[in-house]
Amino acid sequence: MTDDTYEKILDISRRRGIAYPSFEIYGGLSGFIDYGPVGSRIKQNVENLIRKFYVIDEGFLEVQCPTLSPEQVWIASGHVQNFKDFMTECQKCGEPYRADHLVEQAKGLRTEGMGISELQETIAKENITCPKCKGRLDSVYNYNLMFPTHVGPGKGKVTAYLRPETSQTTYLSFRRLWEFARKKLPFGVLQIGRSFRNEISPRQMMIRLREFNQAEIQVFVDPGQKETPRFSELAGMKVRINTKDGIVETTLGGLVGEKTIKVQMIAYYLGKSLKLFEAMGIKPERLQLRQHEENERAFYSSDTWDVEYVSPSIGRIELVGIADRSDYDLSAHMKLSKQDMSVNIEGRKFVPHVVEIAYGIDRPIYCLLESCLSEEADRTIFKFTKEVAPYTAGIFPLTQKDGIPEKARAIFTMLRDAGFYTFYDESGSIGKKYARADEIGVPYCITVDYDTLKDDTVTVRERDGKSQKRVKTNELVEELVK
Amino acid sequence: MTDDTYEKILDISRRRGIAYPSFEIYGGLSGFIDYGPVGSRIKQNVENLIRKFYVIDEGFLEVQCPTLSPEQVWIASGHVQNFKDFMTECQKCGEPYRADHLVEQAKGLRTEGMGISELQETIAKENITCPKCKGRLDSVYNYNLMFPTHVGPGKGKVTAYLRPETSQTTYLSFRRLWEFARKKLPFGVLQIGRSFRNEISPRQMMIRLREFNQAEIQVFVDPGQKETPRFSELAGMKVRINTKDGIVETTLGGLVGEKTIKVQMIAYYLGKSLKLFEAMGIKPERLQLRQHEENERAFYSSDTWDVEYVSPSIGRIELVGIADRSDYDLSAHMKLSKQDMSVNIEGRKFVPHVVEIAYGIDRPIYCLLESCLSEEADRTIFKFTKEVAPYTAGIFPLTQKDGIPEKARAIFTMLRDAGFYTFYDESGSIGKKYARADEIGVPYCITVDYDTLKDDTVTVRERDGKSQKRVKTNELVEELVK
Repeated sequence: MTDDTYEKILDISRRRGIAYPSFEIYGGLSGFIDYGPVGSRIKQNVENLIRKFYVIDEGFLEVQCPTLSPEQVWIASGHVQNFKDFMTECQKCGEPYRADHLVEQAKGLRTEGMGISELQETIAKENITCPKCKGRLDSVYNYNLMFPTHVGPGKGKVTAYLRPETSQTTYLSFRRLWEFARKKLPFGVLQIGRSFRNEISPRQMMIRLREFNQAEIQVFVDPGQKETPRFSELAGMKVRINTKDGIVETTLGGLVGEKTIKVQMIAYYLGKSLKLFEAMGIKPERLQLRQHEENERAFYSSDTWDVEYVSPSIGRIELVGIADRSDYDLSAHMKLSKQDMSVNIEGRKFVPHVVEIAYGIDRPIYCLLESCLSEEADRTIFKFTKEVAPYTAGIFPLTQKDGIPEKARAIFTMLRDAGFYTFYDESGSIGKKYARADEIGVPYCITVDYDTLKDDTVTVRERDGKSQKRVKTNELVEELVK
Repeated sequence: MTDDTYEKILDISRRRGIAYPSFEIYGGLSGFIDYGPVGSRIKQNVENLIRKFYVIDEGFLEVQCPTLSPEQVWIASGHVQNFKDFMTECQKCGEPYRADHLVEQAKGLRTEGMGISELQETIAKENITCPKCKGRLDSVYNYNLMFPTHVGPGKGKVTAYLRPETSQTTYLSFRRLWEFARKKLPFGVLQIGRSFRNEISPRQMMIRLREFNQAEIQVFVDPGQKETPRFSELAGMKVRINTKDGIVETTLGGLVGEKTIKVQMIAYYLGKSLKLFEAMGIKPERLQLRQHEENERAFYSSDTWDVEYVSPSIGRIELVGIADRSDYDLSAHMKLSKQDMSVNIEGRKFVPHVVEIAYGIDRPIYCLLESCLSEEADRTIFKFTKEVAPYTAGIFPLTQKDGIPEKARAIFTMLRDAGFYTFYDESGSIGKKYARADEIGVPYCITVDYDTLKDDTVTVRERDGKSQKRVKTNELVEELVK
């Protein structure tokens, strides 16, 4: 069930300005990508769709916090202590390995719960060596996945880390946000921005990056009120669940009714996420829900669910995680900072709980590229939705003479002044121009020809059906927003 | 000529969710701010205005590159070698100082061109001590303003820095961008994103940050063609120049004609920047141009200009720097990476030159806040332009009974579904609701009252003039986009 779509997307992405490895001229560095001119537009459109679904539609707040934050933040969150892998390296060839993975792969042993000394002993006892060169392995050590640095000069300098997630930085200003939300629960806070993880094996382009983009939403709730009146809008929604016993088809309302989903809000945001991904152009038939098992869930979470995309090319990809995080984070910051994070509602004093909706940005972009890619006999198209397409239209002069380029430029300027993202393309035949526009998913191509000079009409060609019609230039704006 | 506007803006910013110091619960860390719910909306609007002026109106490309980049990038750019201050610290109290500033302030000596040993000798010879505690000063050392870290595990780890500017990361993929631009000059590339400088003395909230936001544009040009046909649109524009001999009033065309501005494109982008800042709501009468003097300009730049804002509260603030950077950057990366950065146009092989337009995002936000703040007898208003205002409208129910909240909610939902950023406010009197909306610069307040239930009209109150009129709810969308 694998195909070569992944390689095709990589190839088009590089050639057509969607995304490509960063620092290529210096030999590259795994886990970092540039979004090119087309990819940047798609990324902004994806981010704005998330805003439309949450900031406009749910009335959630949005914040932007620093990516670099002092050590205390990550001590309170537990990342300094726990966000680490057990590493070892080959003494001969220098290749780094995760010690637990080596033990599992070499001997099929389970390593859950093993610490440094146990892994070290197992490697010695089982005589595990470097899979590459059979060299001896060095001591096992803790490798924290956060990038450390220092802020400020001299002896007063402060240890800081690049954030491995946005959510903790949202929690820090809870009291200000609580005031802004007029001291009422629930309220949600979105943060879109970069996060950083010093992955040992970054892979697959946008799938596991060292510097990546997130859109994480923290919904602060009353612990006794994790319901939402809007759940009725989505209760009837059909969903597929990825369970140990295979795929089960059911409805969100059914899952809540039978208490498989313990928190109604989680069900609501799972449904909302499915709608959001569909609006991005991700194929709904490739989406499924998965509940975290007890041993993979954080100890403080009563329930955690993912929406997964099943790629025909590279398998399951997690697109969003939705978790009841209880009062874990606010209480942790309250403890370390000694600042009160509790609220008082009608005489009840408590620390609010958090339902988190944690979207990646880069992975949905890959999945929508894969979903929208369509190969026909004579052309390759990205069938992007209008909301995600990088440009609304391309404007093409039929020839380079007789006043046609001037007329085409005038139409380009008109659309530009109306606020459309468009581009002007004068090289090659009309057929080649169509092909280039199809390959970056432009919904409309506008050709200016000799008739345009006579009757002020242009040919508007629609991407998916290749249908063409003549449109008066003064009705063009209306045609494009249809 | 100083007033207390700065303090007032700080106060409103903190109270009303515009911006506030980060990590407050852990005692803060200078040089880092959070954009709150209102500030995040303003910041997005400012960024989208820049896109409107350059990506839509000029057809420039946009890219997004990593903030963390390997050492070679910053060796080629010269930042590893030169982006540093000379530091010393008090041996007694530990206070850090810039050694050159200490020498200048203590003895009024000029330190230009002084190295470590000369500064060290001067401190000893002139017997300069800690201004705070009179303690002895420690050795002078180089302090690089970039934040360093490492990427990857083990012996293969790579030294990397958080970028101190976006521009270098744009240059790296020049060849791909050149292909994307169909191998024609000029073409411009915008990058909006975070940059980082480990400042010794961050100050004044959004004015000097350690983690800040930039919108830097690189226009790649033929060295012999630094003109633009669109200059004629702006040649007549009146401008004020800040010169050694005071303020001089003239026009952009005049400055180019007399060769004060050596590069026509620089004049065009200066004019475009003035228009952009005005669209952001920055008072045009507070804007002036300033040419860099020879000794402050980078050696490779033939001409560099700033647009400055003159704050009645905190003095001159640089909002954008526009520089002819020649082929310096592309050639530097070509030399270190051994990758060809030259282009071939009709048989001429050359490395393109760059005209850079480097906007800050945070400083214009401060300046627009200061420009839009208006204090009247009974209220404080931000007179934001519609393009920058965080919300289009607030929706207020007159009372909490008789079906009025339900009707108000329905209108709120209608505007939400039409894509407007709006908010619903039910606490306090209508007067208090108006005051709160004014303080975050909301252009329209919509009140739902008993007449609404009868004739389906609402009161629309306009922010600046406080005028009120009755509008049919089905004509509301039209009224708000006027």
